[in-house]
Amino acid sequence: MYQAPGYGGSSHHHPGYASGGSVHSNHSTRYSRPASNYSYQPGPPPGTDPTLWTYFTGVDTDRSGSITANELQQALVNGNWTKFDLDTVKMLMSIFDVDRSGTINYNEFAGLWKYIQDWQGVFRHFDRDQSGTIEGHELAEALRSFGYNLSPQLLRLIEQKYASAPTSGYGPPPGITFDRFVRACVVVKTLTESFQRADVNRSGYVQFSYEQFMSIVLSAP
Amino acid sequence: MYQAPGYGGSSHHHPGYASGGSVHSNHSTRYSRPASNYSYQPGPPPGTDPTLWTYFTGVDTDRSGSITANELQQALVNGNWTKFDLDTVKMLMSIFDVDRSGTINYNEFAGLWKYIQDWQGVFRHFDRDQSGTIEGHELAEALRSFGYNLSPQLLRLIEQKYASAPTSGYGPPPGITFDRFVRACVVVKTLTESFQRADVNRSGYVQFSYEQFMSIVLSAP
Repeated sequence: MYQAPGYGGSSHHHPGYASGGSVHSNHSTRYSRPASNYSYQPGPPPGTDPTLWTYFTGVDTDRSGSITANELQQALVNGNWTKFDLDTVKMLMSIFDVDRSGTINYNEFAGLWKYIQDWQGVFRHFDRDQSGTIEGHELAEALRSFGYNLSPQLLRLIEQKYASAPTSGYGPPPGITFDRFVRACVVVKTLTESFQRADVNRSGYVQFSYEQFMSIVLSAP
Repeated sequence: MYQAPGYGGSSHHHPGYASGGSVHSNHSTRYSRPASNYSYQPGPPPGTDPTLWTYFTGVDTDRSGSITANELQQALVNGNWTKFDLDTVKMLMSIFDVDRSGTINYNEFAGLWKYIQDWQGVFRHFDRDQSGTIEGHELAEALRSFGYNLSPQLLRLIEQKYASAPTSGYGPPPGITFDRFVRACVVVKTLTESFQRADVNRSGYVQFSYEQFMSIVLSAP
């Protein structure tokens, strides 16, 4: 079974760095920084990985010392150079903004960076045809390898919902870009865990009040 | 009770046209069209509203005679000029691409246009402070007026999920832009109707298998 990246630093095999999503660390801003007296550039914390610090300061374009959601959205791009959806950025912020400050500090960034790298490995592994997007059968294989045994109907719903464009009547839905693939997997994980928590006697059925049902659904990314 | 816009052309009071989302019909392309011999420009169907036809041809930037999801996303902007989320565009396509061609023809566009205008009216009505976004108490009032009696906890979840940026620890979530407001309302409507359909004896509780639960959630926009 393949392991979906966890929040706490799971590690697994990385097939390579050929495609998939990436953090576009805007190195050019390091040289075009205005010579303002008011721009405070804190140094790296002791023991910092210099490469990671370079990425962090590249994403932190206003040199505030922490990364806003907007800076993160500017920095995160899919393999086809499209930006991450706001909903994926919000999901990442909610996972890694541990101190709920609304921004990502360097320590939080280290976790975020690892998480994205882990997911890049997963994405490239399952993007068998290296098309840069995950197609239906690749999605099915990925979710199966994570331990989710979903019906063809559910797989089709996920394929359509997370496709990076609407489905036309002719042919299959378009593929799923990196950021939407991560979101799809996290949503399936979150909903499945919520269902299992509610199914206390493992009957395969749950009883929900309206409040419980809506709360579970609206809490998922 | 205020009426949320329906798919079939409900009508209600429009307080004005001051803010909210809008279709940016790209008039300039009408004059910059390349003089290609292969560019076929079909005329308007008989009995066409000339204004609506102008909007339609403005959105149909490649003059193909129908609107793609990409053209629609380019044309639809919120009051603050941000583009609509892909998920909102996909939702609109799934509602109005009646013949499942993958594109919006002129007749389908007429329905889409009216739907957006109706929602603009709703948005402006509930954007009491005319900030251009819907804040928590405005959202609560809108959903209550549509007949949804949601707990403060659920309202807070919706406010956070559809906020147009992540919530920081200090203060309330940012407001909800037009396109995300429409999506939030349609999601609440869809999930509530699914719950009510499953609650056949009106007990306030439903029993779901995993398949049913996932299917309902993944079918919502």
